[in-house]
Amino acid sequence: MTRADGRTDDELRPVTITRGFQKHPAGSVLVEFGDTKVLCAASVTEGVPRWRKGSGLGWVTAEYAMLPSATNTRNDRESVKGRVGGRTQEISRLVGRSLRACIDLAALGENTIALDCDVLQADGGTRTAAITGAYVALADAVTWLGAHGALADPKPLSCQIAAVSVGVVDGRVRLDLPYEEDSRAEVDANIVATNTGTLVEVQGTGEGATYTRSTLDAMLDVALVGIQKLADLQAEALAQPYPRDLPGRS
Amino acid sequence: MTRADGRTDDELRPVTITRGFQKHPAGSVLVEFGDTKVLCAASVTEGVPRWRKGSGLGWVTAEYAMLPSATNTRNDRESVKGRVGGRTQEISRLVGRSLRACIDLAALGENTIALDCDVLQADGGTRTAAITGAYVALADAVTWLGAHGALADPKPLSCQIAAVSVGVVDGRVRLDLPYEEDSRAEVDANIVATNTGTLVEVQGTGEGATYTRSTLDAMLDVALVGIQKLADLQAEALAQPYPRDLPGRS
Amino acid sequence: MTRADGRTDDELRPVTITRGFQKHPAGSVLVEFGDTKVLCAASVTEGVPRWRKGSGLGWVTAEYAMLPSATNTRNDRESVKGRVGGRTQEISRLVGRSLRACIDLAALGENTIALDCDVLQADGGTRTAAITGAYVALADAVTWLGAHGALADPKPLSCQIAAVSVGVVDGRVRLDLPYEEDSRAEVDANIVATNTGTLVEVQGTGEGATYTRSTLDAMLDVALVGIQKLADLQAEALAQPYPRDLPGRS
Amino acid sequence: MTRADGRTDDELRPVTITRGFQKHPAGSVLVEFGDTKVLCAASVTEGVPRWRKGSGLGWVTAEYAMLPSATNTRNDRESVKGRVGGRTQEISRLVGRSLRACIDLAALGENTIALDCDVLQADGGTRTAAITGAYVALADAVTWLGAHGALADPKPLSCQIAAVSVGVVDGRVRLDLPYEEDSRAEVDANIVATNTGTLVEVQGTGEGATYTRSTLDAMLDVALVGIQKLADLQAEALAQPYPRDLPGRS
Amino acid sequence: MTRADGRTDDELRPVTITRGFQKHPAGSVLVEFGDTKVLCAASVTEGVPRWRKGSGLGWVTAEYAMLPSATNTRNDRESVKGRVGGRTQEISRLVGRSLRACIDLAALGENTIALDCDVLQADGGTRTAAITGAYVALADAVTWLGAHGALADPKPLSCQIAAVSVGVVDGRVRLDLPYEEDSRAEVDANIVATNTGTLVEVQGTGEGATYTRSTLDAMLDVALVGIQKLADLQAEALAQPYPRDLPGRS
Amino acid sequence: MTRADGRTDDELRPVTITRGFQKHPAGSVLVEFGDTKVLCAASVTEGVPRWRKGSGLGWVTAEYAMLPSATNTRNDRESVKGRVGGRTQEISRLVGRSLRACIDLAALGENTIALDCDVLQADGGTRTAAITGAYVALADAVTWLGAHGALADPKPLSCQIAAVSVGVVDGRVRLDLPYEEDSRAEVDANIVATNTGTLVEVQGTGEGATYTRSTLDAMLDVALVGIQKLADLQAEALAQPYPRDLPGRS
Repeated sequence: MTRADGRTDDELRPVTITRGFQKHPAGSVLVEFGDTKVLCAASVTEGVPRWRKGSGLGWVTAEYAMLPSATNTRNDRESVKGRVGGRTQEISRLVGRSLRACIDLAALGENTIALDCDVLQADGGTRTAAITGAYVALADAVTWLGAHGALADPKPLSCQIAAVSVGVVDGRVRLDLPYEEDSRAEVDANIVATNTGTLVEVQGTGEGATYTRSTLDAMLDVALVGIQKLADLQAEALAQPYPRDLPGRS
Repeated sequence: MTRADGRTDDELRPVTITRGFQKHPAGSVLVEFGDTKVLCAASVTEGVPRWRKGSGLGWVTAEYAMLPSATNTRNDRESVKGRVGGRTQEISRLVGRSLRACIDLAALGENTIALDCDVLQADGGTRTAAITGAYVALADAVTWLGAHGALADPKPLSCQIAAVSVGVVDGRVRLDLPYEEDSRAEVDANIVATNTGTLVEVQGTGEGATYTRSTLDAMLDVALVGIQKLADLQAEALAQPYPRDLPGRS
Repeated sequence: MTRADGRTDDELRPVTITRGFQKHPAGSVLVEFGDTKVLCAASVTEGVPRWRKGSGLGWVTAEYAMLPSATNTRNDRESVKGRVGGRTQEISRLVGRSLRACIDLAALGENTIALDCDVLQADGGTRTAAITGAYVALADAVTWLGAHGALADPKPLSCQIAAVSVGVVDGRVRLDLPYEEDSRAEVDANIVATNTGTLVEVQGTGEGATYTRSTLDAMLDVALVGIQKLADLQAEALAQPYPRDLPGRS
Repeated sequence: MTRADGRTDDELRPVTITRGFQKHPAGSVLVEFGDTKVLCAASVTEGVPRWRKGSGLGWVTAEYAMLPSATNTRNDRESVKGRVGGRTQEISRLVGRSLRACIDLAALGENTIALDCDVLQADGGTRTAAITGAYVALADAVTWLGAHGALADPKPLSCQIAAVSVGVVDGRVRLDLPYEEDSRAEVDANIVATNTGTLVEVQGTGEGATYTRSTLDAMLDVALVGIQKLADLQAEALAQPYPRDLPGRS
Repeated sequence: MTRADGRTDDELRPVTITRGFQKHPAGSVLVEFGDTKVLCAASVTEGVPRWRKGSGLGWVTAEYAMLPSATNTRNDRESVKGRVGGRTQEISRLVGRSLRACIDLAALGENTIALDCDVLQADGGTRTAAITGAYVALADAVTWLGAHGALADPKPLSCQIAAVSVGVVDGRVRLDLPYEEDSRAEVDANIVATNTGTLVEVQGTGEGATYTRSTLDAMLDVALVGIQKLADLQAEALAQPYPRDLPGRS
Repeated sequence: MTRADGRTDDELRPVTITRGFQKHPAGSVLVEFGDTKVLCAASVTEGVPRWRKGSGLGWVTAEYAMLPSATNTRNDRESVKGRVGGRTQEISRLVGRSLRACIDLAALGENTIALDCDVLQADGGTRTAAITGAYVALADAVTWLGAHGALADPKPLSCQIAAVSVGVVDGRVRLDLPYEEDSRAEVDANIVATNTGTLVEVQGTGEGATYTRSTLDAMLDVALVGIQKLADLQAEALAQPYPRDLPGRS
């Protein structure tokens, strides 16, 4: 029993990570998990929100959104509706929380990094692609801050963060679900973890059904292997030089 | 090393479940987990939202909110701010999703049950108390519908749903965290499960930290025992007669 | 001709005033007028709104709201609708204005007391119950401020404030209308007055009808007797010790 | 002791009522109470709001608003702020309720009359001027409906409605307060009544003070005489022909 | 082929400019282009918006709005809808931008002039009437500032600004379109220019059609003659003394 | 005197038009004018808005927006602010109006095409790039509708529409301004025209300055040549086959 796209159950979709996609933000990464394409930008601002001033700590925040044209049938624009939906806010909070797990906010100094994850095309797994790409954009923003002498400490990033979806479809545990599988999954989980295999966030949901602990274990087994591969791809992308001019580069 | 309130690490706070707290809704339950008090009301409306009409299926939805006076320092009223915050929406979605896991929406007929979980007093664990209480209110609303001959099938509830928080505090896995522990937990998880021990939702978050799979396992062990106890308390409360007059009761 | 609940025309419903209902706010009172139950909390904040800073004067403000489950048929949540309705705002303004009539804002010092009146169950007269309960919560908040040495003057309260509804139902002037009477009243008035019988606010409305001055007089006669009784009940409740620990109490 | 504008205590400001101020609405009246100028338009729409359909009853609704330039210092535009303030909503509700007291909604047929009261210039008493002018605009809209054969019954108006402010200033009961008096009044009341002296709405407020029943009586005495004079001015204005062409007029 | 109102193609409607319409704002002008009536108020505030503080420059801003009763069929109130429509914002921006073209913001000193253009009655050309009237109100506000010694330089206005609509109706280029012509125009342009014939803003739109450069030229020819006439009427109106008392006027 | 990027005054930036950028919408075009990159999607929906039902006419609407990361310094997300800004609404209206000038809405049948123009990177001229790209996306959506047999008439597009900015910078008329020139232009115009040189929309604005008719003429001369070149590039892009599978294609 193979998957519609020919993958094995524990196989990721083709993943590409393109740094320097936009010219303005300090970090700008287009991440693709198959047909899911998310533009992750990391914009740096001097200073922190008012409630944090004088703490010596920096801040990392995130906003997730979807272009109206990203989905199968056009979705209404939240700015026009005048309110941000529950799903959008929930994912924005997840992305911010996940990325804050890898950064030493004291080392960042009183700077703010805003992570904007805008889905250009959706085919399942947009939140996990967003987290995976946002890490790379964040790393570039940290490089930018360092090159401008704005870090309190030279190494604010303590680990890599990546994420992947996993679920039970047709009774089988499968990795990195596209929309076609996601929409009929019996159980659906999003796992965020580090490159060393420790967990950052586990969210597992039965979709109109419940699931056993052994299913949870099987999903975690598969997800953590996938996250390790994603972390390797992140490292590979970041091994290339920072994609824009920096002070002091000849 | 004992906890501030004298409990052992795997002990629930005193839990009370009071049915019939309000006179208008079909189900109205005041649930208390220690000093956390949540009023869970289940209101029945004939018919379903437009997008579901003619499906023969019912609907269960939930809204979570907090009184301004429920918290340590007064929190601003969301109606006055004009927008529902991300945390509020996230919990509302969690409560609705969790309760829909135990109900056969076809058996419900084209009726809607709205679950309103209003926190009267907050001391940690408000979302897990809300889910635990909402199940009892939902059960009462189902009884009410049955007594009014409005169910398509007599037994729409397939299992009980309860929830509890669990976390790592002072390096120890602890059950049912009050605010004082929750606010300094290194890892924080909310587990929703059935009375038979299958999982409905697992949400585990490192708070500025990451955690290992064995920590996740230890938290699940403790949580599932706690949920079993909560399910027993739900069953005990529901063993009493429906707290209001019903047609055909002499 | 008796009333459905057996009362005489000039009789109040059973009234209970429970202090210390919540543990966080400085004052927290559950007031019940029959089946109408309003939770009145008085939260203290150091400082005053920006437009008042440096004046040496304190501020008292109020917000009234209703739980969705409080009414006969579920009412939509205003936070979800994204706007506070006209009726809600009108009552919030009435409560704040009424309570400010009894307090010397200079004696309060530059402190703010927020009065939150949340209706847990509605059966007519919610705004008058709210005012009557809010006075007791306000008195407790003043006690709390005094015990913390935060008052500019030790006795900021110059009188008691209570309120009651009165109307013409079935051609008879009746006191303290439950929903069943209120919904079919020809004339409906809400009277706010002090324990010494002077008026704070008179609001009398013909409901699709007009009324004579002698009807207004008859309504005021009945209302002021009722308010005197409410003031006695307030005094009785406040004769008990402050329900929480205070500095300097042994 | 005379008033700043030379009036006696029980004297109205000069009042003018100009019908036909705008060409589009069925009724359009500019009413002036001294320097207070309110444009009252009555727009007719066939049909009623959804919740009233099929009842055979018409509907009268009102909205009150103020131009930003109407006040002493510019007031922010509520459309730009994105929310209608509490005071605005309260007055809109008062105007609608007051005018519905004089009209037989069954006689109106299933038509809606929207009363827009826009304050062009404010100098105290805007809500009472609005009610007084809106009555005249409403009468014109009724004439228009009658001439177009759209009334279920030829005489829907059972009486005239007018309103005036009255207050205690410098210890004296005074009628029709301009801003200069209103802003320092100890007691402030708005009285709505019919041309035959029966009451529609009484709203009396102590401004940081309380007041006795004899003060209320004195205020009502003065107000009802003033309202009688306003009703005479309304009748005089309406004695002129309808200011626009109507079908069947030669 | 004449126009419905008897005008020649290049003729303005009767234009009146009434200064001093309201007593509160520093400038208040009622401008009428035929049946189009717009109240233009210029309110002065000391200081400038935060982003401009310390620049030594003043600011001129504008808001355009329409009374619900101004149009043929009642238009809903934007404050009640809770959002300002695109057309309203677009015109507000046009008015502000146009008027800023004639004023030296350094000469104004750090003062803000808010131009409120409220349409009392609409019959086409409301935005061009608003700009034409707002110039006169702005001139009066500048006079007021000068008389109060608040200008950094005595002559901040470098030219006059006026505006007119022009369009192609029934195949003919026509000036100053009333609603009846505007609603069926093939091409519709709004021209803002100075009294010396230089352009401030040209906005020409094909309405479901396109147009040639020679049509644009013909429209500009006619519009600039019309604007010259409007500038003469402005000058004539401003030749009268400032309509209110000023310091130092005997 | 050359431009910073080496272009002559009447030269366009390098323009690329990439069809089929996204897989879901019927038309999806990435258009680039130098560093300005706009993603233009045309989504087809069966049916038309309610106010148009039964007319037999289709509808074309547009929404313009900018990613937070598109600009030099991050711009706040309008969905989070809860309201769409005036500039955004103005451009959305311009795009929709411009594209409706080339399409026969009767030929379209009762279908709606939504044009979403999302700016991925901004460097001046975003609205003109959006219009130019949206035309190509619209043409693809029309092809899609035709292939699905959903057009009332086979050729709804009567001409091509393209747009370009032109302005006066350093005293010289220049075509297609990048941000660096746009931000200091004395006059700024956006011209929308057809491939045959007729005008659709002319918007010329003096930026704190006025301009003569001969300047307007010079700007139009340059712009219309540029638009002709853009139309050629559109035609060239559309000469390639439709980028996705269509029914009946072998």
